[in-house]
Amino acid sequence: IQSKLPGVSTTIFTVMSKLAAEHNAINLSQGFPDYACDPNLVELVSKAMQDGFNQYAPMPGSTFLKETIAAKVENLYKVKYNPDTEITITAGGTQAIFTALAAIISAGDEVIIFEPAYDSYAPTIKLLGGLVKTYELAPPSYAIDWDMVKKLFTARTRMIILNSPQNPTGSILSADDMKALIKLVSGTDILILSDEVYEHLIYDGQQHQSVMLYPELKQRSFIVASFGKLLHATGWKLGYCLAPEKLTKEFRKVHQFNVFSVNSPMQQAIATYLQTPANYTGIAAFFQEKRDYFRSLLAESRLELLPCNGSYFQCASYRNISDEKDTDFSMRLIKEFGVATIPVSAFYQKGTDHKIIRFCFAKEHETLALAAEKLKNI
Amino acid sequence: IQSKLPGVSTTIFTVMSKLAAEHNAINLSQGFPDYACDPNLVELVSKAMQDGFNQYAPMPGSTFLKETIAAKVENLYKVKYNPDTEITITAGGTQAIFTALAAIISAGDEVIIFEPAYDSYAPTIKLLGGLVKTYELAPPSYAIDWDMVKKLFTARTRMIILNSPQNPTGSILSADDMKALIKLVSGTDILILSDEVYEHLIYDGQQHQSVMLYPELKQRSFIVASFGKLLHATGWKLGYCLAPEKLTKEFRKVHQFNVFSVNSPMQQAIATYLQTPANYTGIAAFFQEKRDYFRSLLAESRLELLPCNGSYFQCASYRNISDEKDTDFSMRLIKEFGVATIPVSAFYQKGTDHKIIRFCFAKEHETLALAAEKLKNI
Ligand SMILES: CSCCC(=O)C(=O)O
Ligand SMILES: CSCCC(=O)C(=O)O
Repeated sequence: IQSKLPGVSTTIFTVMSKLAAEHNAINLSQGFPDYACDPNLVELVSKAMQDGFNQYAPMPGSTFLKETIAAKVENLYKVKYNPDTEITITAGGTQAIFTALAAIISAGDEVIIFEPAYDSYAPTIKLLGGLVKTYELAPPSYAIDWDMVKKLFTARTRMIILNSPQNPTGSILSADDMKALIKLVSGTDILILSDEVYEHLIYDGQQHQSVMLYPELKQRSFIVASFGKLLHATGWKLGYCLAPEKLTKEFRKVHQFNVFSVNSPMQQAIATYLQTPANYTGIAAFFQEKRDYFRSLLAESRLELLPCNGSYFQCASYRNISDEKDTDFSMRLIKEFGVATIPVSAFYQKGTDHKIIRFCFAKEHETLALAAEKLKNI
Repeated sequence: IQSKLPGVSTTIFTVMSKLAAEHNAINLSQGFPDYACDPNLVELVSKAMQDGFNQYAPMPGSTFLKETIAAKVENLYKVKYNPDTEITITAGGTQAIFTALAAIISAGDEVIIFEPAYDSYAPTIKLLGGLVKTYELAPPSYAIDWDMVKKLFTARTRMIILNSPQNPTGSILSADDMKALIKLVSGTDILILSDEVYEHLIYDGQQHQSVMLYPELKQRSFIVASFGKLLHATGWKLGYCLAPEKLTKEFRKVHQFNVFSVNSPMQQAIATYLQTPANYTGIAAFFQEKRDYFRSLLAESRLELLPCNGSYFQCASYRNISDEKDTDFSMRLIKEFGVATIPVSAFYQKGTDHKIIRFCFAKEHETLALAAEKLKNI
């Protein structure tokens, strides 16, 4: 059988989590909490099942949840989305990304991505016959030079994928970035897929620069969000996509034939839970405290910490410690030191190695302390 | 914005369920139960959440659930699938179908489908650049003439989609069908996507002819199954795909970038629940009783009942009652008689109208009786 994705193997997150388990290592690789989500939220799911929310939810999502999202978005960003025609509930952020790409990208269409990037973007684009135009960003700032982006534009440029806060680097886009982007796309019909699954995880009082804040961008953007990240329940696989009506229409055409609809009792429970804004407004402070704690611990190791402005990932360079490839170094961290991380080269299609590894700090203090203790001696 | 699926509108199931709600009609259109699923199963989901199954499940699915499926399949069909390499848990049957097609179909590939067909097949194939080769089956038997299938074969034939028991007709494939199919595909590299989501709903002591029973078919088949149908919880959106290792490998390459992984606590709960074979062996008798009850009620109307050998759908012809198109007739049933059904022309790309409507009988006796009472006067 001839593969449609010959170069693709199992995603790095699965590989590292499996290795972590096999070597009984502390797993700071894949991005998920090691503490319990809110028992009140769990209770609401139980109640929703008991109340009979066990059959197909409406294809675009529960009306209650879509209205709740519209209210939350308006509350946070002062921007309106119509729940009927502009919000679609998905089986997680990844499915929203896949579906938006599948709805838009045809053979020969070009999509610009910024690397290091979440590892689903490039293979999904290729699967659809699209061409990936890659702009490799470099540590420590991972800043974007928008003149370089412009050079990637061709007549076939169909879409740009943004991701702020960025996985894996924790860098964020500034208001100046957004203005530069607006200049580039104004007057074109280039679309934007804005992966904002870490929208709430942004630190030091900075404001999340959602594309929805800029009308010129909003009208051409699919915005992807994740309840798994927001509610500390990554295994529930619920997210959503915001997009203007004309884009949502195309999105739903694919969505209905991809997953059709999404887990019904959990939609009901999340909608109820989010009626209380306090259930989602404290999350930046919660994770900032973890970031600061973990950084203070790692400061005692020989690793060099990169900036972390958002997301729940901390990157660190080991260039002063070893010349190994990051894949080898992270393997050795698992085997010899009992700590699993992600080698950042996995986020570059070419495997570009800047000698950087990524830690997930969405963990109990105890876990972080235990890991840091082991890393002291590298 | 130019649509990739210009001819596609909202799926008929969403349209009819919405109309049913708007007109306060009894909803026998979309296929889902109107009674509660087993409270013990609900309890197991609550327990799984309390036990901490709230973070990412493994990408291919929970090991416990995959092993449980392997045991169930071996118990029912005496056939082995390797949980590690041949079973993948999906966000419902529809996602499994989409992912199998996305993993295999490239531009110009031809896929043979039998209509009336579940409405996701054709648009998904087209979305992927494939060509749909359609064989229209006719009532009342919807039998397949395999010589006609052979005529559809070309050098570009990549896949055949089977669906037995068939949605919407309730017809099933026989052992003779399977033998004819084996003759056709032997020596070719044509693959099979076998949508067996109604595998357990088969009546009058007949045996489900799964493709897995025939080694010549098994080795070239993706088999799609649904927990929603089995466990009376269509809104949980869990299913799975069985396929030999070489096909599963391609399936998972796409799966990991489509939904990545599937609802974790529900996987855990379903695996626990299925440890008790009695929780899945009684389902044919349960639905056969509903079928017989509903048929006996409808026998008092002027509708002509078609055979129903499987699935939870009953088709009926109204050709002796009216000349209307089935879309008009079913609209009138909603508005004037308060009963929502699905016009079977929606399952033909060309809208072929045999004057047949489909009822879902996965309902309380009370619901079925109420609907039949209303239908007496048409
Ligand atoms: C499917 S893993 C999703 C992304 C994430 O959590 C990670 O980058 O580790
Ligand atoms: C998404 S609706 C799934 C299929 C079904 O239940 C139906 O045919 O009504």
